[in-house]
Amino acid sequence: MTETLGRVAIVGAGQVGTMLGLALSNSGAVTEVGLADLNPARLEASLARGAGRRALETDPEVLEAQVILLALPVPGIVAWLERNGPEVHPATLVVDTGSAKRLVVEAMRDHMASGAHAVGGHPMTGTEVPGPDGARPELLKGAPFVLCPVRDDPPAMRAAHRLVEALGAEAVDMDGAVHDRVVARTSHLPHLLAAALAVVAGDQEVAVAGPGLSGATRLAASDPALTASFLTANADQVHAAAGELIEVLEGLTAAAAGGPKALADLLTTARAARERLIP
Amino acid sequence: MTETLGRVAIVGAGQVGTMLGLALSNSGAVTEVGLADLNPARLEASLARGAGRRALETDPEVLEAQVILLALPVPGIVAWLERNGPEVHPATLVVDTGSAKRLVVEAMRDHMASGAHAVGGHPMTGTEVPGPDGARPELLKGAPFVLCPVRDDPPAMRAAHRLVEALGAEAVDMDGAVHDRVVARTSHLPHLLAAALAVVAGDQEVAVAGPGLSGATRLAASDPALTASFLTANADQVHAAAGELIEVLEGLTAAAAGGPKALADLLTTARAARERLIP
Repeated sequence: MTETLGRVAIVGAGQVGTMLGLALSNSGAVTEVGLADLNPARLEASLARGAGRRALETDPEVLEAQVILLALPVPGIVAWLERNGPEVHPATLVVDTGSAKRLVVEAMRDHMASGAHAVGGHPMTGTEVPGPDGARPELLKGAPFVLCPVRDDPPAMRAAHRLVEALGAEAVDMDGAVHDRVVARTSHLPHLLAAALAVVAGDQEVAVAGPGLSGATRLAASDPALTASFLTANADQVHAAAGELIEVLEGLTAAAAGGPKALADLLTTARAARERLIP
Repeated sequence: MTETLGRVAIVGAGQVGTMLGLALSNSGAVTEVGLADLNPARLEASLARGAGRRALETDPEVLEAQVILLALPVPGIVAWLERNGPEVHPATLVVDTGSAKRLVVEAMRDHMASGAHAVGGHPMTGTEVPGPDGARPELLKGAPFVLCPVRDDPPAMRAAHRLVEALGAEAVDMDGAVHDRVVARTSHLPHLLAAALAVVAGDQEVAVAGPGLSGATRLAASDPALTASFLTANADQVHAAAGELIEVLEGLTAAAAGGPKALADLLTTARAARERLIP
């Protein structure tokens, strides 16, 4: 039996917050889940789905929890930490879900009260549908949940591991800088490419889209403001990743001009790379 | 009631040939479907799935059919036309399924016997699983099936439309050059991007792939030799399409460096483009 996580407060009742709230509420590992959101309709919809037992109306109510999950876009996470970090109680665990981690870890280090525990987090799953309706808690099962240390604080990492376990996900410890470098290439770059491809493919005189294009552009259906927030928060690594992509792409088109054999060899290498990446 | 298509010969019993054979065999619109393939195991697997009633062992057997479908990679289609085009009987319809059309239409124009009917074809659906096992004939329902005129031959186009109708797909008439320009951007470029992304994402010290990367790289799981064959056959347009993509991508990364608002505006435009493209 794992120790209970106690009262959990989730700040942000969108797709990610609702997903986490549903998973925790059904886990038996928490005393209670409370939800906070500045948007009353979103908060109500998330509560209606069962992501939490009650609404938390104020920052002090949130700060009463033993675990605080910040399920906001990165700028919102940083703003919350600037405002509330010094007030977080000793032994309380704060974990965020933002998809860029250097900025968040730095804000945690700068603003969290000493004695309080902080870990940067990133659940590597979800859907393209924003809001509580898009939440699919079953996606957490076995999904990687990156945890980035903030201070030399082993109890914080142990508590964060228990949280991830309660969610049914797989904890992956990683330095924030490594996270941002890897995720720029495995998550942020795919968002940019999907958008760029939708623009190029959409600029044609006839639309004859097959299932390949649909899958290849799916990430372009994501919420633009949210996507822009993490691409901006990781802009330097995203820029570097795009440069690497362009180099590989130019190598492939050069090979295509040279005949099918050379190109097929490169595509075979790419297929093997994908097989290693995708479980 | 539509007129029967008579005996149909499908040359190439891979994923596409098997998909077409299954759809036609169950359509009631044909007298018989025969299958030809140089690979005996593939031929047997396709027949076992019910894609045809019997194996066609020789070119003359294929040429006895009223409708000949060339479901081969583009170089194989061109080679078949060079070898058999002059022997195609008057009133027989030849349609191919290659995903690059200028080379095929040109080979049809150069080699097909006068009096025989030829139309370039491209069913815009399928799976990434090669071979008869990958065939999913239900995907044809409502899928675009591009038809490219070869000669000024209205009966050929009418017959090809009846064929597409029997398959349950939607005929889209299009000049071969227009097809190749559009498909370079909506289908061939996505294949190249998926491969390039798999290479860049795979070149990381840790693998933390989410569902976004899986979908964005799905086309990289395709058969490399087949993909190389159509990318090579359409190399000039693929090269131009990659250039356009790089330009849009660089615009997006420049916007990311400038802050979330400008980037969110571009992503909103991309999302709208996708909504117009994907039904």
